[in-house]
Amino acid sequence: MTNTNKEIPYKIYLEESEMPKEWYNVRADMKEKPAPLLNPQTLKPMTAQELGEVFCEELVQQELDDKNAYIPIPQEIRDFYKMYRPSPLVRAYCLEKKLDTPAKIYYKFEGNNTSGSHKLNSAIAQAYYAKKQGLKGVTTETGAGQWGTALSMACAYLELDCKVYMVKCSYEQKPFRREVMRTYGANVTPSPSETTAVGRKILADHPGTSGSLGCAISEAVEVATSTPGYRYVLGSVLNQVLLHQSVIGLETKAALDKYQITPDIIIGCAGGGSNLGGLISPFMGEKLRGEKDYRFIAVEPASCPSFTRGKFAYDFCDTGMVTPLQKMYTLGNNFIPSASHAGGLRYHGMSAVLSQLYHDGLMEAVSVEQTSVFEAAEMFARVEGILPAPESSHAIRIAIDEAMKCKETGEEKTIVFGLTGTGYFDMMSYEKFNDGIMKDYIPTDEELAAGFAGIPKFPGNEF
Amino acid sequence: MTNTNKEIPYKIYLEESEMPKEWYNVRADMKEKPAPLLNPQTLKPMTAQELGEVFCEELVQQELDDKNAYIPIPQEIRDFYKMYRPSPLVRAYCLEKKLDTPAKIYYKFEGNNTSGSHKLNSAIAQAYYAKKQGLKGVTTETGAGQWGTALSMACAYLELDCKVYMVKCSYEQKPFRREVMRTYGANVTPSPSETTAVGRKILADHPGTSGSLGCAISEAVEVATSTPGYRYVLGSVLNQVLLHQSVIGLETKAALDKYQITPDIIIGCAGGGSNLGGLISPFMGEKLRGEKDYRFIAVEPASCPSFTRGKFAYDFCDTGMVTPLQKMYTLGNNFIPSASHAGGLRYHGMSAVLSQLYHDGLMEAVSVEQTSVFEAAEMFARVEGILPAPESSHAIRIAIDEAMKCKETGEEKTIVFGLTGTGYFDMMSYEKFNDGIMKDYIPTDEELAAGFAGIPKFPGNEF
Repeated sequence: MTNTNKEIPYKIYLEESEMPKEWYNVRADMKEKPAPLLNPQTLKPMTAQELGEVFCEELVQQELDDKNAYIPIPQEIRDFYKMYRPSPLVRAYCLEKKLDTPAKIYYKFEGNNTSGSHKLNSAIAQAYYAKKQGLKGVTTETGAGQWGTALSMACAYLELDCKVYMVKCSYEQKPFRREVMRTYGANVTPSPSETTAVGRKILADHPGTSGSLGCAISEAVEVATSTPGYRYVLGSVLNQVLLHQSVIGLETKAALDKYQITPDIIIGCAGGGSNLGGLISPFMGEKLRGEKDYRFIAVEPASCPSFTRGKFAYDFCDTGMVTPLQKMYTLGNNFIPSASHAGGLRYHGMSAVLSQLYHDGLMEAVSVEQTSVFEAAEMFARVEGILPAPESSHAIRIAIDEAMKCKETGEEKTIVFGLTGTGYFDMMSYEKFNDGIMKDYIPTDEELAAGFAGIPKFPGNEF
Repeated sequence: MTNTNKEIPYKIYLEESEMPKEWYNVRADMKEKPAPLLNPQTLKPMTAQELGEVFCEELVQQELDDKNAYIPIPQEIRDFYKMYRPSPLVRAYCLEKKLDTPAKIYYKFEGNNTSGSHKLNSAIAQAYYAKKQGLKGVTTETGAGQWGTALSMACAYLELDCKVYMVKCSYEQKPFRREVMRTYGANVTPSPSETTAVGRKILADHPGTSGSLGCAISEAVEVATSTPGYRYVLGSVLNQVLLHQSVIGLETKAALDKYQITPDIIIGCAGGGSNLGGLISPFMGEKLRGEKDYRFIAVEPASCPSFTRGKFAYDFCDTGMVTPLQKMYTLGNNFIPSASHAGGLRYHGMSAVLSQLYHDGLMEAVSVEQTSVFEAAEMFARVEGILPAPESSHAIRIAIDEAMKCKETGEEKTIVFGLTGTGYFDMMSYEKFNDGIMKDYIPTDEELAAGFAGIPKFPGNEF
């Protein structure tokens, strides 16, 4: 819905002076707070001290803070943001024309930086707090490689050491990402690896595994907690990450407000939830406070359907069961999606914040198959020019579907979706699609049941 | 030089309303006009009719027009430009800090589109005029792949057929570019190929050749002139291309004028000259009209030194000697740079406009070796975030060198350079650099003499 006669430009950019100076913490406005992280030994909430063995101190505070709605963005981070932000909010005029829909479609494009995605928003924040604490370096995992690239960039900028465990199938399928990380000075190891105890165990139990984010997290956490001067950082799932990513939603809202545009539907792809959570946060805040109403749609792959087929339960965030327990929608910490699944979003769990919001009926979720995702990606690329990441293309798929519903009903709905990144390093997946040999994959109920069996059982964790 | 107290943002964006509505044709202000293209049989200037067998009609007019200073940009092209333009003019605050230089450094960043470079500016123009003429499709060559990708995008948008001959070494080293082009619906053939008479001849004469832009041009021209409903399009060198690329310089000038900034030095990499010519055109116009003075520096690879070691003579634009003759700085149409040369800019010749300007002392040129180029690229990537294309990094190298001279002298010069694109598809070259196995290559005088021997001899073509 647009209450203005002003012509909407193709791209709405904010001035530097209009860029957010504070992150927005949606937990502050949630009546039902996300459940606390639990210590898997004691089953009691993790203390700041316990979390401080894994994470930087200031990030622990952010992780636990469900009271303060606004957290100032340090000037150093705002300066870094200026190098690649504000990102444009694009009016998809060409896509609308191609679909011949009365819907107005906008996308917030986060791909115009070398990491190729929104991940840099949290990478610079986490690297900044590590540097501020006087640490020597950080460890992390990466899947498709966006997060590892983003963290490498942030660490190069701040002159911090950076050790990246990269999911093996991505390491092999995306060697160029490895070179980008190396150009930024990072150490990159394929996961599971022989360099950690947990990696050796996973390799022994699952010889020939193509890896998973869960495995790689276990390895990175082990190295961080066993190496003096290092902490672990994570690119998604955590509350702190959603907080940092709120910059996406805040910029989106500021750009829409500038033209008095009120969206009807806001759509984002969901792996661990960082983009979706960041994009919807300020809008969800309005909904939680009863000021406005919006439809929010999380889009996940049918091959890794955490929201739509997972359980809302306490589970480990990693395969090696070394992390705290988090209450979330999960497929089970030992669920590893089929290697034929090309489109990212391979994580078994989901952000606790988003899980709670979904559980409380404040958000919808749908799953889509990858060939239909690449069909949407190709159409989008040809008319809008941008070659989207497979992850982002999940959101494109549903944005197109919703726009086509408007065509049927004649409704002029305003649809906003998150275009989280570019697909330049995903050309092997595109090649499969171009060659017509891409396969869809939907886990059977039996396969899912095997995953659920890995979720820890204890009183209060019924599902 | 900056005559303002206004704070300069990291990125200066123009509003859509401030975007150029006309291209600027620098030839109109040149006292010494570039020499006309010659028919190689008759040695007489090519007529519009002769050129029309190869190029679209309206592009032929632009090619021959050295009178009109401003050519309106058709609305359809301006609409396409809005999808990825204006490109930002970035103040390199972080690079300045890293170098500890009093110089003010700006770069015009053309990489924020899927083709990854400035090439899209001319691709959409050429595709538009082909479509307007009712053609079925276009043929072209591509080296590193930016031009082919750009043309594929433009053709997909306008629903034109697109046949691309890709220099074989790039085709093999950069398979992902091929998939981007295929995603946009183009046909891509490695050159030299068996699909054309000229390709078969080159393969017979030079078995195992890794190809060159010159070869690929010959093949694309042959297909265009022998297939009804097709014309040939070229991504650099031509006057029309420099005209379209003037949008880079016009935007740069508008952005600088907005903050009353006058550059002292303007730097661009030079292969065929499209970026450099586009960037400097409006500034060169002021210099030609005696309104202002600037230093212009063309930067070329030491391995393909057209300006700094070439001859100013009439030569073929391609290896197969099927094109008209152009007066330009050339290494000889049969010069093919060493395959160890990773950094793009492999063309034997140079834009006639830039050649004339250089010949008349209005512009400087320097050559640089590739390891020093990648050193500059790595430093730039780490502090400015953007991973630059090897081509663009030639300009970065000299911008850094000039900024370091300012550090010695204490001068606060304002340096502007063209950052023509991103290096996401050049990670194999970066890998060589990261592994410390990149080699420099400078052709010997004997190797150059062999190239010069291929330049046609006729009265008036002494060199």
